Amino acid sequence: MKLIDSLNWRYATKKFSNRKVSAELVDQIIEATNLSASSAGLQPYRLFVVENPALKLKLGEGSFNSQIAQSSHLFVFAAFEKITQEYIEKYINHIATERETPVESLADFKNALINGFLNRTDEANFNWAAKQAYIALGTALIAAADLQVDATPMEGFDADKFDELLNLHEQGLKSVVIMAIGYRDEASDYFAKVKKVRVAKADFATILP
Amino acid sequence: MKLIDSLNWRYATKKFSNRKVSAELVDQIIEATNLSASSAGLQPYRLFVVENPALKLKLGEGSFNSQIAQSSHLFVFAAFEKITQEYIEKYINHIATERETPVESLADFKNALINGFLNRTDEANFNWAAKQAYIALGTALIAAADLQVDATPMEGFDADKFDELLNLHEQGLKSVVIMAIGYRDEASDYFAKVKKVRVAKADFATILP
Repeated sequence: MKLIDSLNWRYATKKFSNRKVSAELVDQIIEATNLSASSAGLQPYRLFVVENPALKLKLGEGSFNSQIAQSSHLFVFAAFEKITQEYIEKYINHIATERETPVESLADFKNALINGFLNRTDEANFNWAAKQAYIALGTALIAAADLQVDATPMEGFDADKFDELLNLHEQGLKSVVIMAIGYRDEASDYFAKVKKVRVAKADFATILP
Repeated sequence: MKLIDSLNWRYATKKFSNRKVSAELVDQIIEATNLSASSAGLQPYRLFVVENPALKLKLGEGSFNSQIAQSSHLFVFAAFEKITQEYIEKYINHIATERETPVESLADFKNALINGFLNRTDEANFNWAAKQAYIALGTALIAAADLQVDATPMEGFDADKFDELLNLHEQGLKSVVIMAIGYRDEASDYFAKVKKVRVAKADFATILP
């Protein structure tokens, strides 16, 4: 299973070389990420891919994660702060168009979404949206590894600063997790050579036959 | 890129056939999932794989998700309710053993974890742990698709009932998301044939060059 090999190959890279990831590979990672599953298919998050060196530098200032500035590209996953009726309606219309089906045939689904989301607090919906973004992070990490591109997921960043520099709040978004990509500088990254540590499979998973 | 093909092939299966997923494939999905990235490598969740038909039936009772009972195997992702000093120390000792390095060399890392996690509320740590489980869900969905096994991620389940039937609370765990696996019953699943709907790539991702 090549996937297992890719998962074993990858690690949270601490030192990136200067080598850039090609636009083509970046595009493939984005495409894979966009195909991630999300609850009800709502994809309640967006992706910002920062290539601009000055912007990466600003984003990384004061962070203990030097990979923010060092990366070839920085992926910022941003979740919607609110789920609005407008967002749901736009989604339903999009399904109708894509599947060439009358929008009326989706009325039950639409009502279930409206009842489900508009009766919850914005905070609950935002937390839910952030979790969906983490599924996408899982996809993005694998897509990068599959292309032999190194990737480091990070929670240690100043979300308020990110939101400001990327104008996320104006778009109804808030940054929730980031991923630096690039190519490992194997010689100067201690973690490139150490054994991957995971919980023993028998402790990790319990089968109930 | 085979990964893109797998992602396009998969969909949230609504009707499973009676065909069982082999123990070997289930094991590969578990192995891949256990290789998922997690913040600081802490893997603050565990996996329960329910094969037992009577138990699946009980778990699915009253849910609108018939896939719970119908599935070949039901994967339950459960996050730790608390992050304890004991858990962190066990993790540090495990790294030291696996990497054949003195535990003292990990003192800074250990202290950073203890300061980080023990100064947050249990609720904040649980929410964080749940998000890590969603990264693993992202991996599990891809691992299944890579093996041409169908999978449906679901949030619509009675977490309290799951926790009780699987004795999760006694293990310090709480179910956060589930995934049914099996093989699609293509003839009777409308969703097996409809077009996959995603946000247009240009709307999904913004590149900042």
